[in-house]
Amino acid sequence: MKPLKVALLGCGVVGSQVIRLMHEQAADLAARIGAPLELAGVAVRRLGRKRDIDIDPALLTTDAEALVTRDDVDIVIEVIGGIEPARTLIVSALSKGKSVVTANKALLAEDGGTLHEAARNGNGDLYFEASVAGAIPLLRPLRESLAGDHVKRVLGIVNGTTNYILDKMDSTGASFTDALEEAQTLGYAEADPTADVEGFDAAAKAAILAGLAFHSRVTAAEVHREGITEITATDVASAKEMGYVIKLLAICARADDGRSFGVRVHPAMIPRSHPLAGVREAYNAVFVEAESAGELMFYGKGAGGAPTASAVLGDLVAVARNRLAGTRGPEESTYADLVAHPMGETVTRCHVALDVADKPGVLARVAELFSKHDVSIQTVRQEGRGDDAQLVIVTHRATDAALTATMEGLRELDHVRAVASVMRVEGDE
Amino acid sequence: MKPLKVALLGCGVVGSQVIRLMHEQAADLAARIGAPLELAGVAVRRLGRKRDIDIDPALLTTDAEALVTRDDVDIVIEVIGGIEPARTLIVSALSKGKSVVTANKALLAEDGGTLHEAARNGNGDLYFEASVAGAIPLLRPLRESLAGDHVKRVLGIVNGTTNYILDKMDSTGASFTDALEEAQTLGYAEADPTADVEGFDAAAKAAILAGLAFHSRVTAAEVHREGITEITATDVASAKEMGYVIKLLAICARADDGRSFGVRVHPAMIPRSHPLAGVREAYNAVFVEAESAGELMFYGKGAGGAPTASAVLGDLVAVARNRLAGTRGPEESTYADLVAHPMGETVTRCHVALDVADKPGVLARVAELFSKHDVSIQTVRQEGRGDDAQLVIVTHRATDAALTATMEGLRELDHVRAVASVMRVEGDE
Repeated sequence: MKPLKVALLGCGVVGSQVIRLMHEQAADLAARIGAPLELAGVAVRRLGRKRDIDIDPALLTTDAEALVTRDDVDIVIEVIGGIEPARTLIVSALSKGKSVVTANKALLAEDGGTLHEAARNGNGDLYFEASVAGAIPLLRPLRESLAGDHVKRVLGIVNGTTNYILDKMDSTGASFTDALEEAQTLGYAEADPTADVEGFDAAAKAAILAGLAFHSRVTAAEVHREGITEITATDVASAKEMGYVIKLLAICARADDGRSFGVRVHPAMIPRSHPLAGVREAYNAVFVEAESAGELMFYGKGAGGAPTASAVLGDLVAVARNRLAGTRGPEESTYADLVAHPMGETVTRCHVALDVADKPGVLARVAELFSKHDVSIQTVRQEGRGDDAQLVIVTHRATDAALTATMEGLRELDHVRAVASVMRVEGDE
Repeated sequence: MKPLKVALLGCGVVGSQVIRLMHEQAADLAARIGAPLELAGVAVRRLGRKRDIDIDPALLTTDAEALVTRDDVDIVIEVIGGIEPARTLIVSALSKGKSVVTANKALLAEDGGTLHEAARNGNGDLYFEASVAGAIPLLRPLRESLAGDHVKRVLGIVNGTTNYILDKMDSTGASFTDALEEAQTLGYAEADPTADVEGFDAAAKAAILAGLAFHSRVTAAEVHREGITEITATDVASAKEMGYVIKLLAICARADDGRSFGVRVHPAMIPRSHPLAGVREAYNAVFVEAESAGELMFYGKGAGGAPTASAVLGDLVAVARNRLAGTRGPEESTYADLVAHPMGETVTRCHVALDVADKPGVLARVAELFSKHDVSIQTVRQEGRGDDAQLVIVTHRATDAALTATMEGLRELDHVRAVASVMRVEGDE
């Protein structure tokens, strides 16, 4: 059987694992596909660089554009990341009728439409399981297994770095800075941790998940995004005391209007009894609520060379089979055309701690303000006395706009010395 | 666009939900498939029966064979269960070139080969996501997402009835009989609970999972099977005390020899820190260990009308798309041709409680017996004194044959009054 030729763009942590596994599992892959795979070339930035893996130097090239458009190449795997030159290379490959497997969440979330259109025009496949939650089979279940269901909500821990940091803060009482430093030492966080701790990475994944879940086109710019840098050891301890744990969540939720959805990334308190609460260290997990299926959860490693390569190779087998059969997998599904609504319209709940003067009438004034904004209070409790007095309030569900307006009002209220912390609450109503 | 015609076999709990969802989600399904679906007919045992759902009486028929071979039918959904007439009907449909979606675990585990062969000959699809773990997308991830990986082990809670019973025993201290009765009252267990509590249902699912995981053909007869009827409140309490919980597990594990695997269903103690330990009530969850992906877990509802219908409809969309594209999904993969080894060759661990005479030298005699069978002891502790003395031993890993021989030897040892309980331990070594 004639081999299918594969071009690889990028030979870093993931790329080198892809090469290793294509080699080690060659016989299995050939049996599963129905034809052998052959590595046609590997595009790298510098030829002479020391690599994790032995590669025939004749396969290496710095001319990625020439490689992806070579007539004998059937499939292109892109693991260089970032917007350019990845976009140009993927579009070139797809336009030439190649199929593409990519792990590039940033590009998909910024300009997925362009890639999907190129795949359609070139009659090739565009697969991207590795772009969200690494090794966890998640996108295929969402776009295929749940194709006969109505997804209502996706709630995910999709960034391992921030989960590691928050888990350390929760289990050891460490500050954000100390937990970040430990994550950096262990290689879970990069020297410049911005993309992770400010939620950019999770926001790109949220956009991809919302697009698949709601059959609409969603970009990262539409995702409301807040990071975890402001979270203090006190916030974590206070959540713990109440039976909650703080996680950075990517949340995609249909609105009741049937025309829109919310998509957001922010830290939130979830009850310790929630399945996502038990997700420790750098693991990822995604909770999906569908009308018929009910609650589903997918759990596993969200990053790393071999786990990400597992997802890439799964896609590689699929697109290779499709090529042999002369067919294509499911293409982009955007028929529902729902729109992302502003964060203010999102319905959520709030946990708020107020430093207050320990005087009669304070609670009445605070309660009145909540009521003015139509925010109903679920629990309130006073902690400490005198100068240390603190009111801890958990609300019922309300729009984020109403909750925000309430918080602003609180800051101006007499007897409220400070709004010590505000955190959204998810997963238990 | 010309509609695709669907014949439904069975109109019980799952079938009626399939009809409802096909109707309610008609527009979405048509958009996702690229053509509308039309219900061509519903085969039932008795025409006059009262049903959960309104169906045009003209669609009902008792002649299932005529329905599945009708020229205008494209896809057959089989949700009647059992071996016959399901097998004959599915084979008839496939032989006529129809695609088939089935939830029939018993048939797939007894004679899947015949069905797959008929699908191949007829050039149609045979999809069966709903046959294992209900709503949880599991088979598609195993056979597609992990197609580029090497699955080492699958460890699953795949029977909701027994998980409900064991969970009740664990959380309330109830006896097996009382917990079963409660499950029956709530509709989680049938009047005749044999298929569930004796592990037959889980064994069928284990066979299907092993086949997919190891690219081999596996039947239910090859699955070592033990049920949960002998588990006592004392066993559960003793496990709890040691930080374990008892679950009925379906376990498929590759052997080191590269040629065989073990496949078994039996109750086992797992540590409370294991992700499967937190699976409560009638939920299902499956833990997959793959070489590159690492540890994955899939969690959700394993049974029920709507959840099972969700899986059926996901398959329906897939086979409908394939039909429109003139192609087929991935077919049975048995190229690896591994064989199931006997239970005795399986490597596992044991927890054993011995009623012993509280005399010097007992432990030495017991330890000597373990050593004679090459079974290494991890922990041993004596509980009680005098007539109540009990030795509680947890072993290291050994073959099941060696463990069984050890237990038999213990029964004949002087000073061992009784082997009070024996339970395998999984998930922590």
